[in-house]
Amino acid sequence: MFQTAVIIGSGNVAYHLTRALMQVQVEVLMMYSRTPSHAAETGLRLNIPVTSDLKQLPTHASLYIYAVSDNALPEILAHELAPNALHVHTAGSVDLGVFPSHKPHCGVLYPLQTFSKNKELNFRDVPLFVEATTAQDAELLVQLASLLSNQVYRTTSAQRRQLHLAAVFACNFVNHLYAIANELVVSSELPFEVLRPLIAETASKIATLSPREAQTGPAIRRDSSVLQKHTSMLAGFPEYQEIYTMLSRSISGK
Amino acid sequence: MFQTAVIIGSGNVAYHLTRALMQVQVEVLMMYSRTPSHAAETGLRLNIPVTSDLKQLPTHASLYIYAVSDNALPEILAHELAPNALHVHTAGSVDLGVFPSHKPHCGVLYPLQTFSKNKELNFRDVPLFVEATTAQDAELLVQLASLLSNQVYRTTSAQRRQLHLAAVFACNFVNHLYAIANELVVSSELPFEVLRPLIAETASKIATLSPREAQTGPAIRRDSSVLQKHTSMLAGFPEYQEIYTMLSRSISGK
Repeated sequence: MFQTAVIIGSGNVAYHLTRALMQVQVEVLMMYSRTPSHAAETGLRLNIPVTSDLKQLPTHASLYIYAVSDNALPEILAHELAPNALHVHTAGSVDLGVFPSHKPHCGVLYPLQTFSKNKELNFRDVPLFVEATTAQDAELLVQLASLLSNQVYRTTSAQRRQLHLAAVFACNFVNHLYAIANELVVSSELPFEVLRPLIAETASKIATLSPREAQTGPAIRRDSSVLQKHTSMLAGFPEYQEIYTMLSRSISGK
Repeated sequence: MFQTAVIIGSGNVAYHLTRALMQVQVEVLMMYSRTPSHAAETGLRLNIPVTSDLKQLPTHASLYIYAVSDNALPEILAHELAPNALHVHTAGSVDLGVFPSHKPHCGVLYPLQTFSKNKELNFRDVPLFVEATTAQDAELLVQLASLLSNQVYRTTSAQRRQLHLAAVFACNFVNHLYAIANELVVSSELPFEVLRPLIAETASKIATLSPREAQTGPAIRRDSSVLQKHTSMLAGFPEYQEIYTMLSRSISGK
């Protein structure tokens, strides 16, 4: 198994993954971040050494994890480093082909979750999706993933891409709808708190009902009188009006 | 206080509200539903008498609650019934003016929650919004609401309408995004279960972060490479592609 690791990146995924690795006794030797202040801040919180210079990274770690933006990956991977170690990225939409030939042992460890540094979570509940070029590396990664999480799956790049797309709908877009609802409630001089039970119940319902069964509201009832009222109430927010119309149409199947 | 009530309607709201009333020892004398089979089924589950004939309803109850669709309200309210009792509807978007003059004591008890008969919930967590024509009736309704729920607010019709609109975004539209995510995941031969931790965490995050702070993903990062990949992956689902583009634009503020 992997006893030592190096983390490239200092964002939300890097932070939570590092914590999880440390909890299962993998020694994180160093963290890299292009931005010195980010690296310093995250390193301090995690109590590990940091650098902003790829050449300073230890070359004897058994695992290198790249948790950086998709755009930054190719340039960072071009740097020759530890050719016998396993190199793994954490991106949802980047194929294995991104790894250059001087990193023959390579793979993916994709965590399907939304991470914020200011919100702790139990990493064992985060589903992990594993991919690697060789069967042996895949096996090693599955072993590591199983230490970190209760839900480990082997997937293809195509499946992982599709998961990432689904996650944008189920998380990023959902959160944006929370933001719009927040704006509407606050503009009526009511606190956002009044929506919390509804938001919690909407999420919890789909543990026992399928989303189609769980659907309620004016669009599924095709209640044209409410739909019309709502549309005219949004006259001052043309963007939200457009979102309202499009999602209502999609729900009612019209 | 109200010792006896009659419930007009047998849908999701009527079902959960009746259960909550019975739990605080309000005697529900009878339930009405236009559709005899619905009335019979719900009445049987709640163990209360049912009718499909407005003329059969007891006239001596102290409270009449109308939990029917917005469109059905005016016709049902036109029926003269118990002129001295308090008559209350539960709709988000219907003004107090819907009550005819032969119902001088009237008001609104709006529960901000998504109800399904097949999913139990704790009614004490459901925020209730109260409105009435006279101060005295409002006071009585607040007393009743406080027995039923921990969160009771007095609101105007305009505030209630806005809450209902916000709820469509935070619940109905959110649930539709769950349905789309489900479809995408299942089309990749992965179980919907893999999205559950993400959905739960997305909802739970906003208990400690504002929705704007909680936002993650390609749109807020303006990661054009991922946005483009996702858009082309949705080529076979033009409706979802349009939703993807519109919500991503709204998130990135472009």
